[in-house]
Amino acid sequence: MKSKTEHLWFHTKKRWEILDITREVERIVRESGVQEGLCLVNAMHITASVFINDSEPGLHEDQLAWAEQLAPHGKPYRHHQTGEDNGDAHLKRNLMGREVVVAVTNGKLDFGPWERIHYGEFDGQRKKRVLVKVIGE
Amino acid sequence: MKSKTEHLWFHTKKRWEILDITREVERIVRESGVQEGLCLVNAMHITASVFINDSEPGLHEDQLAWAEQLAPHGKPYRHHQTGEDNGDAHLKRNLMGREVVVAVTNGKLDFGPWERIHYGEFDGQRKKRVLVKVIGE
Amino acid sequence: MKSKTEHLWFHTKKRWEILDITREVERIVRESGVQEGLCLVNAMHITASVFINDSEPGLHEDQLAWAEQLAPHGKPYRHHQTGEDNGDAHLKRNLMGREVVVAVTNGKLDFGPWERIHYGEFDGQRKKRVLVKVIGE
Repeated sequence: MKSKTEHLWFHTKKRWEILDITREVERIVRESGVQEGLCLVNAMHITASVFINDSEPGLHEDQLAWAEQLAPHGKPYRHHQTGEDNGDAHLKRNLMGREVVVAVTNGKLDFGPWERIHYGEFDGQRKKRVLVKVIGE
Repeated sequence: MKSKTEHLWFHTKKRWEILDITREVERIVRESGVQEGLCLVNAMHITASVFINDSEPGLHEDQLAWAEQLAPHGKPYRHHQTGEDNGDAHLKRNLMGREVVVAVTNGKLDFGPWERIHYGEFDGQRKKRVLVKVIGE
Repeated sequence: MKSKTEHLWFHTKKRWEILDITREVERIVRESGVQEGLCLVNAMHITASVFINDSEPGLHEDQLAWAEQLAPHGKPYRHHQTGEDNGDAHLKRNLMGREVVVAVTNGKLDFGPWERIHYGEFDGQRKKRVLVKVIGE
C-alpha cells in the first residue's frame, strides 16, 4: 500500500471566501503514484469546510449568502461566552461539511464532468490548513 | 489490495426524487471480493446527493420538502446569471451531502439495523451517474 | 493491509445530546497498529450523527438549538404516519452528517489543533452504536 500526506495552507483576504483547490489536490495525487485508491481532503480547522460543487463564482456567492441566512453572524451564540465571536462559522462548517473522499482510478481523481474541490472559509484572514491524504496501490 | 470501480446510472422521472440504491451497492461489494475495507459511494453530479437514512417513503417526502424549504427553487440565485435555473439544486446537494463511506466487514456492508444508501436527485429527468469504489483485502 | 473494526455503544440521558468521543477513537487507532491509513467513524443509527467540531459545551448547545430551529421537533412530518415521532431527528442527522473519515499518520489521528470527534444524538435515551474502522499499514 502506498500513501502520501500533504498539508495545503490558505490565507484568505476576506472573512468568508470559497476557493477552488482542485489543481493542488490533483498534483498531490499525481505525486503519490497511487493508481487505485482513495483521496481524503479535509479542513484541519473547525470553522472551514471542504466540499465538492460547481466552480462558478455566482454559485460561490449564493453558497456564502445561503450559509449566512441559515447560520447568521452576530447572533448571541452561547459559544461567544468563551470570548469568541465566530459561532456562526462553526455552524456554517457543519452545514457545508468537513471533508470529501474522492476515488482515485487509473492514477487520477475519478470525477464527474463538473466536480471541483472547494475550500470554504467562514472565519478567515489568517493562515489555515487543509490535509490531503492519498492511500492505495 | 483489491479494488473495484463501477458507475451506476439513474434517470429519474421527477425533477426531485429519492431512490434506495442499497442493493446495487451490495452487489458491487460482493463482486469486488473485498472482505475488509471501505466502500465509497458518491454522486458524480453536483446537483445530486448520496446519503444514508431510513428507506421510508414518508421520510423521503419530508426530506424533499425540507430541502425545498431551506433552499427554495425559483429564487433569483446569482448562479442563474449563467443561464441555469438550478441554483436551489446545488444548495440542496450541499445540505444533503455528496458521498458516503461505508465499512466492509466480512465481505458485507457493515450496517446498523435501518441504514440504507440513497440517491437524492434535485435536478433530474436526465441521465446521471453515481460512482461506487471498493478498496481493501 | 491491516484493519480493525469496533463498535462503541452510547446511551444518552437526554433525548438530544452531543458527546466528545475522540479518546475512544484514539484508543482504537492505537490498538489497530496502523501507521498510515484512514479511520472511518460513523453512526450506525439514522437519527444520530458523527461530526468533527470544537469540543466546547456552549457550542454544543448552539448546535442542538440550531438543528432544532432548522428541523423542529413535533411538526406533522409524513414519517409520523408510520407511528414514529422522530421525523425531526432524521432531518437533524442529514444536517449534521453520518460519518467522518480521518487520516491516520505516524500511527495517530492526523488532526488540526481543535478537531474533536463528536457523537450527535437526536433521539436518545436508548442504546445506540457507532462503528470505527481503521484500514492501512
